Amino acid sequence: MEELATEKEAEESHRQDSVSLLTFILLLTLTILTIWLFKHRRVRFLHETGLAMIYGLIVGVILRYGTPATSGRDKSLSCTQEDRAFSTLLVNVSGKFFEYTLKGEISPGKLNSVEQNDMLRKVTFDPEVFFNILLPPIIFHAGYSLKKRHFFRNLGSILAYAFLGTAVSCFIIGNLMYGVVKLMKIVGQLSDKFYYTDCLFFGAIISATDPVTVLAIFNELHADVDLYALLFGESVLNDAVAIVLSSSIVAYQPAGLNTHAFDAAAFFKSVGIFLGIFSGSFTMGSVTGVVTALISFLTKFTKLHCFPLLETALFFLMSWSTFLLAEACGFTGVVAVLFCGITQAHYTYNNLSVESRSRTKQLFEVLHFLAENFIFSYMGLALFTFQKHVFSPIFIIGAFVAIFLGRAAHIYPLSFFLNLGRRHKIGWNFQHMMMFSGLRGAMAFALAIRDTASYARQMMFTTTLLIVFFTVWIIGGGTTPMLSWLNIRVGVEEPSEEDQNEHRWQYFRVGVDPDQDPPPNNDSFQVLQGDGPDSVGGNRTKQESAWIFRLWYSFDHNYLKPTLTHSGPPLTTTLPSWCGLLARCLTSPQVYDNQEPLREEDSDFILTEGDLTLTYGDSTVTANGSSGSHTASTSLEGGRRTKSSAEEMLERDLGMGDQKVSSRGTPLVFPLQENA
Amino acid sequence: MEELATEKEAEESHRQDSVSLLTFILLLTLTILTIWLFKHRRVRFLHETGLAMIYGLIVGVILRYGTPATSGRDKSLSCTQEDRAFSTLLVNVSGKFFEYTLKGEISPGKLNSVEQNDMLRKVTFDPEVFFNILLPPIIFHAGYSLKKRHFFRNLGSILAYAFLGTAVSCFIIGNLMYGVVKLMKIVGQLSDKFYYTDCLFFGAIISATDPVTVLAIFNELHADVDLYALLFGESVLNDAVAIVLSSSIVAYQPAGLNTHAFDAAAFFKSVGIFLGIFSGSFTMGSVTGVVTALISFLTKFTKLHCFPLLETALFFLMSWSTFLLAEACGFTGVVAVLFCGITQAHYTYNNLSVESRSRTKQLFEVLHFLAENFIFSYMGLALFTFQKHVFSPIFIIGAFVAIFLGRAAHIYPLSFFLNLGRRHKIGWNFQHMMMFSGLRGAMAFALAIRDTASYARQMMFTTTLLIVFFTVWIIGGGTTPMLSWLNIRVGVEEPSEEDQNEHRWQYFRVGVDPDQDPPPNNDSFQVLQGDGPDSVGGNRTKQESAWIFRLWYSFDHNYLKPTLTHSGPPLTTTLPSWCGLLARCLTSPQVYDNQEPLREEDSDFILTEGDLTLTYGDSTVTANGSSGSHTASTSLEGGRRTKSSAEEMLERDLGMGDQKVSSRGTPLVFPLQENA
Repeated sequence: MEELATEKEAEESHRQDSVSLLTFILLLTLTILTIWLFKHRRVRFLHETGLAMIYGLIVGVILRYGTPATSGRDKSLSCTQEDRAFSTLLVNVSGKFFEYTLKGEISPGKLNSVEQNDMLRKVTFDPEVFFNILLPPIIFHAGYSLKKRHFFRNLGSILAYAFLGTAVSCFIIGNLMYGVVKLMKIVGQLSDKFYYTDCLFFGAIISATDPVTVLAIFNELHADVDLYALLFGESVLNDAVAIVLSSSIVAYQPAGLNTHAFDAAAFFKSVGIFLGIFSGSFTMGSVTGVVTALISFLTKFTKLHCFPLLETALFFLMSWSTFLLAEACGFTGVVAVLFCGITQAHYTYNNLSVESRSRTKQLFEVLHFLAENFIFSYMGLALFTFQKHVFSPIFIIGAFVAIFLGRAAHIYPLSFFLNLGRRHKIGWNFQHMMMFSGLRGAMAFALAIRDTASYARQMMFTTTLLIVFFTVWIIGGGTTPMLSWLNIRVGVEEPSEEDQNEHRWQYFRVGVDPDQDPPPNNDSFQVLQGDGPDSVGGNRTKQESAWIFRLWYSFDHNYLKPTLTHSGPPLTTTLPSWCGLLARCLTSPQVYDNQEPLREEDSDFILTEGDLTLTYGDSTVTANGSSGSHTASTSLEGGRRTKSSAEEMLERDLGMGDQKVSSRGTPLVFPLQENA
Repeated sequence: MEELATEKEAEESHRQDSVSLLTFILLLTLTILTIWLFKHRRVRFLHETGLAMIYGLIVGVILRYGTPATSGRDKSLSCTQEDRAFSTLLVNVSGKFFEYTLKGEISPGKLNSVEQNDMLRKVTFDPEVFFNILLPPIIFHAGYSLKKRHFFRNLGSILAYAFLGTAVSCFIIGNLMYGVVKLMKIVGQLSDKFYYTDCLFFGAIISATDPVTVLAIFNELHADVDLYALLFGESVLNDAVAIVLSSSIVAYQPAGLNTHAFDAAAFFKSVGIFLGIFSGSFTMGSVTGVVTALISFLTKFTKLHCFPLLETALFFLMSWSTFLLAEACGFTGVVAVLFCGITQAHYTYNNLSVESRSRTKQLFEVLHFLAENFIFSYMGLALFTFQKHVFSPIFIIGAFVAIFLGRAAHIYPLSFFLNLGRRHKIGWNFQHMMMFSGLRGAMAFALAIRDTASYARQMMFTTTLLIVFFTVWIIGGGTTPMLSWLNIRVGVEEPSEEDQNEHRWQYFRVGVDPDQDPPPNNDSFQVLQGDGPDSVGGNRTKQESAWIFRLWYSFDHNYLKPTLTHSGPPLTTTLPSWCGLLARCLTSPQVYDNQEPLREEDSDFILTEGDLTLTYGDSTVTANGSSGSHTASTSLEGGRRTKSSAEEMLERDLGMGDQKVSSRGTPLVFPLQENA
């Protein structure tokens, strides 16, 4: 009979598992149906993620107050002779041995209230699920769908926002929160320990912005592409920085007894850990991406791209293995998978068959969509079903103020310094919009839920949850009014990055070089440049920062692309003659009789600066512009001068037809809406 | 420090998790790359699943003998005052409370050997993963990709093979194995209990055939479509029957003390459970499929099929929720998801946008592919890493003999009886091929690994594993020689069910009615009919068995299809006039001005039998053939006579062009290869 009882219990548990999973799936289904309706009616004030949270919230309330509390079936054992918990426990029950695994520590205060409701317990997932299963597709998709042209054009600014900005934001929020915690201690609202490192940790997790709502609206309204690139690029790299930052803060372990004071050695160790983990993950992600490209390149030789299913499966597995490999080596999988996505979009994508391209894109789109909405509906649910909330009004209000100030201290000064070096200033309206778009989302939540063992972490988790709710609903709803209030142009005809548009896309790039060639009707461009005064002395900075990218670009174009993909110049022409044999082995036969245009999204790097040397075919084209020009007007002249030869080169490069060449005299202009 | 130790341990555990998952992903990657090579070289003797097993086996050996055994970190506790194990345990370690969850029982004999190697433990998955995550996409894909035309044409035979055949096979194998167990008891090879119900359980799990290898080769060689339909249909339904059968056997609990003797009441209760679970799961799956169709139908009204991502996500979620809903209600999710797949292929598929159709197909293709290869590589791994193997040579040899006899006793007699009723006999070569194709695969493995607590179950698991290995490798490799040895025609030009071929497909169906209209060059058709003598008296049986399907078909065509999809006749014409309002509400406006052809794969049901009444448009076409014909020749005549009007109807139905109509006078013939 006792066997039967255990079996019944296991069956009941299985059924509850199914019900809890079913709850989430029905939530997602409901969300999808409602979004469907919203898209039909063109409702923009509520994004699907906000909706998922609302539905989650409703179901959370029902589960919390609508389901009966079951009597605790737990058995309490004492094991006082040991000084720590074991991960596995063997329990001898009347001669039978049962194996138990450690689930977590329970604070003594929660001991009575814990596990009173089976259903509430069932809908609480292992936080590792978020990290290992739900985040990777979201992050990979972000890297894979990065619009490379605009991203690379603004790379310097994006890197500055992501690295410096996140660090600044983290420290400001951390310090402000430390002040808040001290205040709470005085008032007597703090019932347990809350160290300075905890505050910094909070600063790190809450610095991960996730403007998914804003970007969705940008996409729909075709808002300014540069602002889109800045926001998207920042938020993508931001997540990577925040996750590595938080783990370096956790690793901050000063020596000696005074474990929570400042210690220079430990601090520099933490900085070292940050750099080590970040660069390690970056390298790993890029290398795996390149390996995938190489594999798909080699398989293309064997004409096996006739099996798109295999290609897609391989692509999926390689991407996931990047994540796991990084985690297994102690690096950060999320960072690795992000750079893997970027690399794969750059190289591997070109090697895939047309069918595989759309398959992989669609596959990751669906996975990304499901994972994202799942996380947001889980957040809604967690507000009521999570059992260890610590609501502290002072901390929550302090956190809202701190994230506002942290965001302001990060956007405005950085934009000021960046504007010194940028030819296209980031205008005030752009800065306000970036300030406004500081939503918190999936990454902040995943980082907060990862460890909710201590009192401080529980308070952080609750606060993070509320910040996510607030920002997603309020900011998400306010994006459209904000856009029109800030006079940010919408309706920009952005050619999609689909294959069929590639030609038009490239033509557009060749015809206009926005960085150097403001079109005649200059006033429509004024909006892009914002209200900031034209800084003249910044060209040198810009050129210097671009120098390394130019070097990288030509290396990539001449050596990496031909090796890893079937585009670009044959290696036999770019490599020195003594590498002839190697070059012939590595060069794909398709490159030689290649009518296929070079699929290069960021070739305007070369055109931007007037100094370049490129080899193509048999001839070497050397275009020397006025590289030393100091004023904007001369550099503009220099740009015009070099264009003749540079364009000639690109023209052959892209395999463009006559009709396009003939119309190139009149540069294309963005079809703009009228701005007040 | 103690906190730190726990954290380190958790980190180590997380790393090992990553490594173990990485192992599987690399295994799959390796498998894909090798298959790629094999497909290139047209190697057919080893299927991808066989390959996955071999790689799994190699990695298993490495893990088993190549990794160091770690010292057990387990803590043994005594809890003798209780009589059963609790699912959750709270342990008080020096004042701190830790929560533990029950993992499973460990038999006392295994106590010392267990958990000696962390890595081996890590690569051992929770069996529920197979059931809840890996099986559903495989089964759903099977249902979704069922070639409906041939499946329905052979439905009677398929149902007979699946239900009667599996039951027969289960009982024969169970009884034979009981004999083997008795023999083992005499010889003294049996060290623990092994009941008759255990033997029957083994019979049930090992009766689930999975001819994935054979079907892959059939697909590649374009082997006979009817044989394909018989084998595929049998194996799909087979799985459903086996899973329900095994759970009814587990539920067989005779009252009283003598718990393992035969008890009529308990037996009939088990039969009742079988019928209840099966019909419940069937109903649930079909209903969810219809609900999905309805939702996608309604959303089509709002023109929201412009969002294929949402459509695909919805489709995916609804299919998975079917599985979970069935499990939550105590039914069998696998069976529900199978019928959900069939229903969705029939109705929902037609409502999806063209892009969503290919998206959903591709999504499930990838999921199915990954899940299947994962299971097979896990099998290879499990042979060496599973810690509780019980190898019993007598049992294993007995099992091989039993499955051979069980398969023979199921195929040959059933085929004999079916041939009495079939117009197209299942020839000896077909019967031999079906006998030969009795591979065991994923389902048998998943059922066997679900419960490996007792000695008997462990022995079954080991035996099942070996049977899967043997059948997949030997039979998989022997399929091509067997096909040619049995003179089964290959290279049949089977039009794919893709959209672009649909017209050709329908034309083909209308032009030739293979059931009634053997084409002039009759000898090439002889092969299809096998060597069996033409039985004349079987027509009545055939017609009677088809009667219910005819009824169902016309109901489906007249009422369900127009309600759930945008094809078929408008409801306003098929429903009685007093339902006018309802009919007008339910009918899609697209149906009226519908130039879209009826996407109907099994419309030859109507043409097959000469007795039908169909309404379409404003006119009512009543085609009364010689329904009472008793000999093949008259029914053939009747078929010809009715065709004129029936064809006329279908012609309009399908919206076929003039060119096709004009050439319809000469019926299309299968482009056959010469057979000896």
